[in-house]
Amino acid sequence: MPDAPVTSAILVIGDEILSGRTKDRNIGYIAEYLARVGVEVREARVVPDVEDEIVVAVNALRARYDYLFTTGGIGPTHDDITADAIAKAFGVEIGEDPRALAIMSERYPPGDFTPARRRMARIPAGADLVDNPVSKAPGFRIGNVIVMAGVPSVMQAMLDHAIQGVKGGAAMLVETIEAGGVPEGKYGDALAEIAKARPAVAIGSYPSFQDGTFRNQIVVRAREAAALAEAKAAVAAMVARLRGDDLPL
Amino acid sequence: MPDAPVTSAILVIGDEILSGRTKDRNIGYIAEYLARVGVEVREARVVPDVEDEIVVAVNALRARYDYLFTTGGIGPTHDDITADAIAKAFGVEIGEDPRALAIMSERYPPGDFTPARRRMARIPAGADLVDNPVSKAPGFRIGNVIVMAGVPSVMQAMLDHAIQGVKGGAAMLVETIEAGGVPEGKYGDALAEIAKARPAVAIGSYPSFQDGTFRNQIVVRAREAAALAEAKAAVAAMVARLRGDDLPL
Repeated sequence: MPDAPVTSAILVIGDEILSGRTKDRNIGYIAEYLARVGVEVREARVVPDVEDEIVVAVNALRARYDYLFTTGGIGPTHDDITADAIAKAFGVEIGEDPRALAIMSERYPPGDFTPARRRMARIPAGADLVDNPVSKAPGFRIGNVIVMAGVPSVMQAMLDHAIQGVKGGAAMLVETIEAGGVPEGKYGDALAEIAKARPAVAIGSYPSFQDGTFRNQIVVRAREAAALAEAKAAVAAMVARLRGDDLPL
Repeated sequence: MPDAPVTSAILVIGDEILSGRTKDRNIGYIAEYLARVGVEVREARVVPDVEDEIVVAVNALRARYDYLFTTGGIGPTHDDITADAIAKAFGVEIGEDPRALAIMSERYPPGDFTPARRRMARIPAGADLVDNPVSKAPGFRIGNVIVMAGVPSVMQAMLDHAIQGVKGGAAMLVETIEAGGVPEGKYGDALAEIAKARPAVAIGSYPSFQDGTFRNQIVVRAREAAALAEAKAAVAAMVARLRGDDLPL
């Protein structure tokens, strides 16, 4: 019996994502990263820079999953309210953190360590800092919630540090079968039967359309190598049997 | 007094997004598209191909916002369960829709119109179809919920059709001020004061880091041109006053 999966959610915080002005790249990056270390992402949300919205989402997601990863809203401007919202969600105090002040004092000369920059040293009581090798101002972890910057390069550097304290689940094994010339509509029924007979295996079918051509891939996921290999063989045999239909979907 | 804003949410449905295998491009596209026609996106969620998760998210989001736009899960394979989940969320029947069958019969010769492909003709009772000029199998609209494909090119074509039935709010006016050499930490305090004094204007500050350089933009949004112009002038004057600090954040 494999271990129970370690689960997580992602919360992206920022008006700029919901207005379409900035295209989120953090959900995809974090999801792929966590999958590699065996942590399943079960849900993602994007909420605006509104305290009540952040508090409600944080409390819903941290209660439901083993971990919650947030991005955005920890910079120096008035719309950066994530740290305060997290403190409110946990019902703890928040203030300037001496550890964060020390880190940031090394970066900013005294005259340049403005009140706005000092905002980035506000950390909820009881949180551990998450290193930020790119621009110093740290993220933090409180309980099962890991709070990171929104700028992708900074978030990615923080994630490399934060992941060290995350309990990795049994890694999920993955195989991809190229359906090539066989369209989804042709193999859908047979694939459903294969999936139904294998409850320990997750099977998905993913069409993509590029340069005028549809391409289908069938992805098989399982926690045990033997189950994965058996399911992959069944799918590959099915694809081989159906080759020859040239309709694209 | 400007009209009340028209609000919306986006629900992306698909295991492949949460596993990181496919990077979502639909949230950003839909958000930008809706902003242009004056519909505010207030929240986005990504859920897996699990019926209960889809039903809960659909009912939460359609109750809270004027519109809900969903993407994904309306293809021909067993993991495409969006139409059934939407029917369940609305408490209506679902079956093969004669209008959808007619459209799809034109595309697929009788021998190729497989049971899997016929899945794509399953439409909840009472829904209107949404045209799919790319690959025919339609999306649909039921109540305030618009259900579209997950493949971006197909979704985008569907959105062009679906938007015609959407009540456009007063368009939001936007101006961007390049903060250029002035770092966020330097202008954060002054910007907070500008924002606080102008409740009818939304002001955001957006750092990005590219090719080793931080770049900051300040975005001002309002429904009325006069309020927008006044706020933009105040921000631009503040930026001009602060030029000269060369720290990047």
